[in-house]
Amino acid sequence: MPRTCGSMGRHARFPWIGVRMIKPYAEMSVEELEALDKELKVEYKKMQNRALELNMSRGKPCVEQLDLSMGMMDVLNGESDLTCEDGTDCRNYGVLDGIPEALELLGDMMEVAYDHLIIYGNSSLNIMYDQVSRSFTHGVMGFEPWCRLDKVKFICVVPGYDRHFKITEYFGIENITVPMTPTGPDMDQVEELVSSDPSIKGIWCVPKYSNPTGNSYSDETVRRFARLRPAAPDFRIYWDNAYTIHHLYDLDQDHLIEILAECKRAGNPDLAYKFASTSKVSFPGSGIAALAASGNNLEDIRRQLQIQTIGHDKVNQLRHVRFFKGIHGMVEHMRKHADILRPKFEAVEQICEEELGGLGIADWTSPKGGYFISFNTLDGCAKDVVRRCAKAGVTLTPAGATYPGGKDPHDSNIRIAPSFPPLEDLKTATHLLCLSTKAAACEKFLEERRNAAPLEVQ
Amino acid sequence: MPRTCGSMGRHARFPWIGVRMIKPYAEMSVEELEALDKELKVEYKKMQNRALELNMSRGKPCVEQLDLSMGMMDVLNGESDLTCEDGTDCRNYGVLDGIPEALELLGDMMEVAYDHLIIYGNSSLNIMYDQVSRSFTHGVMGFEPWCRLDKVKFICVVPGYDRHFKITEYFGIENITVPMTPTGPDMDQVEELVSSDPSIKGIWCVPKYSNPTGNSYSDETVRRFARLRPAAPDFRIYWDNAYTIHHLYDLDQDHLIEILAECKRAGNPDLAYKFASTSKVSFPGSGIAALAASGNNLEDIRRQLQIQTIGHDKVNQLRHVRFFKGIHGMVEHMRKHADILRPKFEAVEQICEEELGGLGIADWTSPKGGYFISFNTLDGCAKDVVRRCAKAGVTLTPAGATYPGGKDPHDSNIRIAPSFPPLEDLKTATHLLCLSTKAAACEKFLEERRNAAPLEVQ
Repeated sequence: MPRTCGSMGRHARFPWIGVRMIKPYAEMSVEELEALDKELKVEYKKMQNRALELNMSRGKPCVEQLDLSMGMMDVLNGESDLTCEDGTDCRNYGVLDGIPEALELLGDMMEVAYDHLIIYGNSSLNIMYDQVSRSFTHGVMGFEPWCRLDKVKFICVVPGYDRHFKITEYFGIENITVPMTPTGPDMDQVEELVSSDPSIKGIWCVPKYSNPTGNSYSDETVRRFARLRPAAPDFRIYWDNAYTIHHLYDLDQDHLIEILAECKRAGNPDLAYKFASTSKVSFPGSGIAALAASGNNLEDIRRQLQIQTIGHDKVNQLRHVRFFKGIHGMVEHMRKHADILRPKFEAVEQICEEELGGLGIADWTSPKGGYFISFNTLDGCAKDVVRRCAKAGVTLTPAGATYPGGKDPHDSNIRIAPSFPPLEDLKTATHLLCLSTKAAACEKFLEERRNAAPLEVQ
Repeated sequence: MPRTCGSMGRHARFPWIGVRMIKPYAEMSVEELEALDKELKVEYKKMQNRALELNMSRGKPCVEQLDLSMGMMDVLNGESDLTCEDGTDCRNYGVLDGIPEALELLGDMMEVAYDHLIIYGNSSLNIMYDQVSRSFTHGVMGFEPWCRLDKVKFICVVPGYDRHFKITEYFGIENITVPMTPTGPDMDQVEELVSSDPSIKGIWCVPKYSNPTGNSYSDETVRRFARLRPAAPDFRIYWDNAYTIHHLYDLDQDHLIEILAECKRAGNPDLAYKFASTSKVSFPGSGIAALAASGNNLEDIRRQLQIQTIGHDKVNQLRHVRFFKGIHGMVEHMRKHADILRPKFEAVEQICEEELGGLGIADWTSPKGGYFISFNTLDGCAKDVVRRCAKAGVTLTPAGATYPGGKDPHDSNIRIAPSFPPLEDLKTATHLLCLSTKAAACEKFLEERRNAAPLEVQ
């Protein structure tokens, strides 16, 4: 369960916060707001004079995280035997599904049996694109290709991952939104939509440490997913488990019911495609990505895959196996990532709590894993806040990016990616974010008060 | 210019061949054929008793060739700086086109400027698939997506590469054949088809050391390609220059006019996509592949590519650059490949010449590069020959594979891939191929004679 903070003036993790005098902006008089506005402008000017150049826009690992995997460059050398367990020379052509030991490693990571996945190249996004593309040109397991249908729709859980939405958008698929809640997508809406509309062919999900909210689907949510009764027989859940082992804490971890097993138990074995990669485990540009699904789905996919390629990079698969040795090694490795990321997440949350707590002008999530914090301004302020940050040298993910078409109907959500900047820079950037949020909120309240004032006179 | 051998009983490269008594099968009496048939059966039995298990089916590099690139495993290690020329950390996300130094290396290899190509993953086949797939779903440079057209056709030069044909076949595209000649495809037919039929959207070409004939397109052929006036504005030449630097000889090399430059000169700058990879330079499973095209085409392609992926494996790009250093290093490396491959090609040709020369029952090509020899039996014998080889333990590419749908109308073409087996095994396999060809031909002649005999009596 995620905690959403910021409205209570006291943070569970930082109990010393909140002793200062806090007055919600909504309760301030026009005079107080005007004084505040002046004060914030001076502070903002100071920030601008620092000529910052910081980037919190993308969930990129930082240099220290990348350094953790440098040993991967040493596990294979000119003297290495590049033969895998079953005797295949990994240097040569062939092997569509992946080498056995890599299937086992990624199977363990994805919590599926080694024969229920296919290892691809370096990008799980590319795998997802390929699934939509194949469904569009050839259909899903023998059903009508989507290119022949008048209308195809996908459900996008919002706020969500922009690159997901862009894939379906690119194929002319209508993106329908369903709101994210603390326990996952609003399942009443999902069930209603999926069971009633046969043009709905899929749903984009980041079920664990979701992008950007950071929370995970509850057991009930996963069970309801597995029990969907889609009107379209070729409806698939696009289960992008990007952050499956990406915990920030060693014991306080979210746990997700394994979707493929749950679908099987629910009598819906072919309902989901599951995606993952080592992009944020080893190297983002040079990891290995995989798709897990039922035997029927994999058979359908292989029919296309064997036309598309002779096989993916097996040497890189072998490199990953020799480096991590197994899932335990991978989990230990992720603890090192966590040690780097945890202070960054906590710094953002602490600064937000210190500077914004109790003001009633923002809230934010407090994830236990993943790469993002979801930050909400007052309605209509997100674009303004992002613009203010940019003008003072801090690049944030564009406001609205977490919604299909880049259009947040409330203009309130901002995705914070704390991973990449060094800790001190991150703190500076977060100060600027808070300052910009306060300035935008202050101006909003002032404007409202001024617009409201004449009405009182009448 | 390729030489087609086998019908003259004397081989330019092996002048000592031909001193034995040679009698074309067509000139043999029934008695002579019957005696020969008996003799061949005994020889075949002997071969079968050797319980061979050899494979000449695919153009796979052999172990010695793979060993040539083992140094690639040493150029990057745990201490390496994985930053590329422009300061990008190759370990992280990003860079859609490829890192600058890899663009230069592959640009040099493909004979195009560094800004006229995009580096993808490990498979040029995958790039070709993606071009067809994108054209199908989104159209070429703004033209109607192929999925909305009633009919789409592609020209397949035959004999040709089965995996090409399977891509278009998979998309329901009608594969039309045009015969390969010693100077390239029959350009009269190509011009006639392309200029008259707007449903023809592309042509599959392996212009240099063609798969499987081993010959290269003449200057005139390339010029005529560049000057095509397609009825379809979205017609593209799929120029798979898979063997661009894959020579067998150091001086006696085929040279190909660079197609993109020639298209530009001819006023058709957007007419061709050019593909290549290092699959048969470094490691087949772990090379880097690229697409070169005009600025307009690349812009069109990037619009899709940025939806499909965040970027390809830059560490592997860097590994290739650090290993080969530049195009000269790559060319030197290819000489080592040639030293391994040349004796194999020559052994096949020599054995064919010794055993089949002058018999009038087969011919074969004598390429100066690439990975294949194209071998032709008498009409109607190829399947039989492949079957006989298989029954004695030698796997050849299935007869017909070099034609769309696996259907060779003459049932005469067999693709020989000499690269993979060790030299001695290759010789054994070639003996078996010759023996099987003789046996099939002998039986064919006997049957014809016997069928013809009663007619003479009438």
